[in-house]
Amino acid sequence: MDVTCYNFKDILTELETDLKNSSFVSIDSEFTGLNYGESTNPLDSPDEYYTKIRTGAQDFLLIQFGLAVFKYNESIKKFTHKAYNFYVFPKPSLRGAPDCRFICQASSIDFLIKNNFNFNKLFLEGIPYLNQNDEQKMRDKLNEKRMRNSLTRTPTCEMASIAVPEEHVKTINDACEKISDFLKNKTLEEITLDSCNGFVRKLIYQEAWKKFSRDELTLETRQYQIVAKRLGTPEEREKLEKDKMDQENTEITDAVGFSKVIRLLSETDTLIVGHNMFLDLCHILHRFCMPLPEKYKDFKQMLHCLFPKVLDTKLMCSSPEFKELIPSTVLSHVMSKINEAPFQLVNVEPEDSNYGYNTSEEKAHEAGYDAYITGVAFLSLAHYLGSISTPKVNPVLPNSPIVQKYINKLYLMKILDTYMNLNGNDPAVKRDNVFHLTFPKEWVYQDINTLFSPYGNIYVTWLTDTSAFVTLSSRDNVLAVTRNLVRAKKVKHGVKVITFNAYHNSRTKSPINDVLNKPSPSIQEAKKRKSHEPQSSTQKKSRVPNFDLRETSSPHNISSIPEETETVSDFGGLLYAFTSFLIGIMIVTLIYKFYRIGC
Amino acid sequence: MDVTCYNFKDILTELETDLKNSSFVSIDSEFTGLNYGESTNPLDSPDEYYTKIRTGAQDFLLIQFGLAVFKYNESIKKFTHKAYNFYVFPKPSLRGAPDCRFICQASSIDFLIKNNFNFNKLFLEGIPYLNQNDEQKMRDKLNEKRMRNSLTRTPTCEMASIAVPEEHVKTINDACEKISDFLKNKTLEEITLDSCNGFVRKLIYQEAWKKFSRDELTLETRQYQIVAKRLGTPEEREKLEKDKMDQENTEITDAVGFSKVIRLLSETDTLIVGHNMFLDLCHILHRFCMPLPEKYKDFKQMLHCLFPKVLDTKLMCSSPEFKELIPSTVLSHVMSKINEAPFQLVNVEPEDSNYGYNTSEEKAHEAGYDAYITGVAFLSLAHYLGSISTPKVNPVLPNSPIVQKYINKLYLMKILDTYMNLNGNDPAVKRDNVFHLTFPKEWVYQDINTLFSPYGNIYVTWLTDTSAFVTLSSRDNVLAVTRNLVRAKKVKHGVKVITFNAYHNSRTKSPINDVLNKPSPSIQEAKKRKSHEPQSSTQKKSRVPNFDLRETSSPHNISSIPEETETVSDFGGLLYAFTSFLIGIMIVTLIYKFYRIGC
Repeated sequence: MDVTCYNFKDILTELETDLKNSSFVSIDSEFTGLNYGESTNPLDSPDEYYTKIRTGAQDFLLIQFGLAVFKYNESIKKFTHKAYNFYVFPKPSLRGAPDCRFICQASSIDFLIKNNFNFNKLFLEGIPYLNQNDEQKMRDKLNEKRMRNSLTRTPTCEMASIAVPEEHVKTINDACEKISDFLKNKTLEEITLDSCNGFVRKLIYQEAWKKFSRDELTLETRQYQIVAKRLGTPEEREKLEKDKMDQENTEITDAVGFSKVIRLLSETDTLIVGHNMFLDLCHILHRFCMPLPEKYKDFKQMLHCLFPKVLDTKLMCSSPEFKELIPSTVLSHVMSKINEAPFQLVNVEPEDSNYGYNTSEEKAHEAGYDAYITGVAFLSLAHYLGSISTPKVNPVLPNSPIVQKYINKLYLMKILDTYMNLNGNDPAVKRDNVFHLTFPKEWVYQDINTLFSPYGNIYVTWLTDTSAFVTLSSRDNVLAVTRNLVRAKKVKHGVKVITFNAYHNSRTKSPINDVLNKPSPSIQEAKKRKSHEPQSSTQKKSRVPNFDLRETSSPHNISSIPEETETVSDFGGLLYAFTSFLIGIMIVTLIYKFYRIGC
Repeated sequence: MDVTCYNFKDILTELETDLKNSSFVSIDSEFTGLNYGESTNPLDSPDEYYTKIRTGAQDFLLIQFGLAVFKYNESIKKFTHKAYNFYVFPKPSLRGAPDCRFICQASSIDFLIKNNFNFNKLFLEGIPYLNQNDEQKMRDKLNEKRMRNSLTRTPTCEMASIAVPEEHVKTINDACEKISDFLKNKTLEEITLDSCNGFVRKLIYQEAWKKFSRDELTLETRQYQIVAKRLGTPEEREKLEKDKMDQENTEITDAVGFSKVIRLLSETDTLIVGHNMFLDLCHILHRFCMPLPEKYKDFKQMLHCLFPKVLDTKLMCSSPEFKELIPSTVLSHVMSKINEAPFQLVNVEPEDSNYGYNTSEEKAHEAGYDAYITGVAFLSLAHYLGSISTPKVNPVLPNSPIVQKYINKLYLMKILDTYMNLNGNDPAVKRDNVFHLTFPKEWVYQDINTLFSPYGNIYVTWLTDTSAFVTLSSRDNVLAVTRNLVRAKKVKHGVKVITFNAYHNSRTKSPINDVLNKPSPSIQEAKKRKSHEPQSSTQKKSRVPNFDLRETSSPHNISSIPEETETVSDFGGLLYAFTSFLIGIMIVTLIYKFYRIGC
């Protein structure tokens, strides 16, 4: 079911019920872009990764949100689904609402339009939204306006008068006469004066308030025209005032729009399943809850507090249980694999045909469809785990112990030997066979390969034009490299080799990190916000570090267009992880070389 | 005529002829946004104005370009027109082409979609482009690749070998056997090997080049598959090589795309007419020629060099000749006015009905249509000037002395007392009755008005939460303000008044201005580039100063959604300008106050 501003209000009520009765939900999103600025690289720590995503992705827009609600029907022992495909666009729906500036990436737009994304529908019918900070600012502004309005009623605050220019005297007098007639003749509820420019309107206000009492009428501007309204009895006036206030409050509540879906989701505490969902979660927090915190640990806590149970099927597919069976974790490839033995595709009928998809539809990259197949993939993977358990478990429900080990662990794109653990410390990784190399700008892969040729096969991860990580295939050569290249006073002119740890420590101590590590708002705030208590608008704004939109990444980098590029990954036992890591790096590096040497 | 990537090549040839035979052209553009960061204000100098536009508008995208070519038909004594409506979008059309990140402003997108802009057509069929810097970078990359390819043919540069992992030995051997069979069996021109991942392809390349000579075959990758091609005689090989190089060169030339239209326009030296065209010209230079220079004087020279004859109908309407007759210079209002006496709407038939518009169409804000009516407006205004000349002139051609005084002067939105003169110094303006005021954050208009109440009516231009310009209505009070407020040691706690000149001088000397005034590339470069000599790609990149997309402008600012808001402006005699200036400021300030006090 496509959800736009036209059917949003109706949908919201039924969605609330759906969520309450859900067994789990799955999500997916489409964005206007994926990255700018510094690229992530396979040897980033989760902390570094988060910082890069935060500064390099948060100004893109989430434009489509897919939400599939899965229920388990005990009587027929089957799951059913109901899928929502929300078009989301922050058009300023109310005066004073933020006029959002956002970034688009040409290749992402190209990718979406080629996958039939309807941008006209998005911009015309997209559901608006405000995050909690913006909502609070709007409410503060409204209160401020009400305060000012009540103050300007007191005579001491009357504004200094402006002399009416000769050419406008007749217009002003005519307007005042009209108002006077209107007050005498009690038949009309209000009258609208002729339209005129802002200066003349200002003069009409000024002169009218000299002649008439604020107890007998109100003046307001609608579409460049002043409207005079009779004030009734004190009771009528009070009711009018109250109605106006109610309407203004409702308008802000309506402007909160799509954020309400995310609030419902957060309140439900149901399991949220996504495929490669880290970026989705970042955008969801940032756009619909509150700006992403600067510190990684605050982010983890905030995310965990708002969504205490998430499961990433891409990470699940990369686990030792599935790694051999599912060589590619791209969602469409996963779907092909789970259609074959030893898997069994779990068939999930729609609860209502208007809200349903089926797995044979050609709707890839529609967020609602991708959310639905993510849910199906999760159930099929879980079903497989149940089938190999002793005793067998069927069905495997989301609260089954079988899937608990995958919960709250997030896959990090390109990062091959670790993941993000939302429920504790991220896993430690050993990188003693990785070296950081600085070299002259002219160097190509071959030069690095020659330098390291005595130490076996290597895997190069380019960082910039003049630096790279070099990973030794064999740990046996670590000592020799340390002795011959790291400790050597001078390897070659312009060439420097240091250990991965030394590099990392030097980065952590650099001033830029001091800036990044300055105190950020307490996690208490996230907890408080989860209960949707609006925050003070004076809270320090989070700022984007400097960036240049025209800056392209290192010429050594291959930027990938699709959302999900294929890399080989793993999680679990350290040894297993390390082997995969090496293969992964090797493939990434060599794919790179293919492009570079143009073969 | 809508022009997209599908008919662009055909159109380009006829456009070249059209431009050569044109009497003048008119242009208009649509953008993804108008401003972010620091707002322009009515007391900005053209220099300050340019700097703000450069940093706050250049990352938006020009997405539709309207070009109407007007010809004068001597035999029937009438003008005809031919209008082109180009959809322009920088999708990366070639590998290695920049993957552009650009900014959108939600209100601008909302405005366009409500005016029937077709974003799906834009993203799917938009014409790509490269500016001269990017084109040169692409050509440099190509040359670098060719150089590397020729180097890797020499045995000294053979790459260090990677040991083939056990699991891939069979695949590699099979591939080599296939190539061997292909070389023996002379019937096929080429063979395609099975698709495989990048690592395996890399190994196939490595092992194949150990077995076969580069003189007998070529290997290349197409869609994850290696294609082996037989190399013929040396002559055939040379031809193959040449064809490949020609194709690669053509691909880059094609990727230059829409920029070719702008190059043609620049080469034609015809008069270019626009309505409020400053922003259009900035975007045209920046996206299709070369990045906007940092220095204002370089910008003026560059613009003048590339487009030596431009005319802004908004400035023309604001001139003393038209000011009284055309009270609003918004394009649609101008069109209404010139339909009535004393004007006579000049009827301009289409040269070809496929390329034509008429003035009664409901196509406002389609760039092609707006360009067309701008041209009609220009002719009608010029016709009026001819009709009041002695002796009368009819028709008034673009080279007539009657319109010369309007050429190369650009209207600056919001700036009320000056304009940009591309052919010399900008006009001097006297602002001795303007004061810069710093005040506490709590202050509202009324506080400022009270402070200045002894000095007659004032006009306030808000700068930030705590600063504003105050313009005295009467110059008679300048001395009193200088004595009582400027020279006074302490006016009030937290309040400071300085003259406009003192404020301006302090700004000019501030470090930020030192940065902005650092030397930028010589204007010689623009001249050189006009002849389309590609530039070295090592040229310093212009950088966007830091900005935060979430930063909203001062709460005192009213940001306007449409491209063209109505302000009153003037150019010409200083006295006349000054009077208009005061009225203008007054209107702007009071319009602001309406919003602020919410009446």
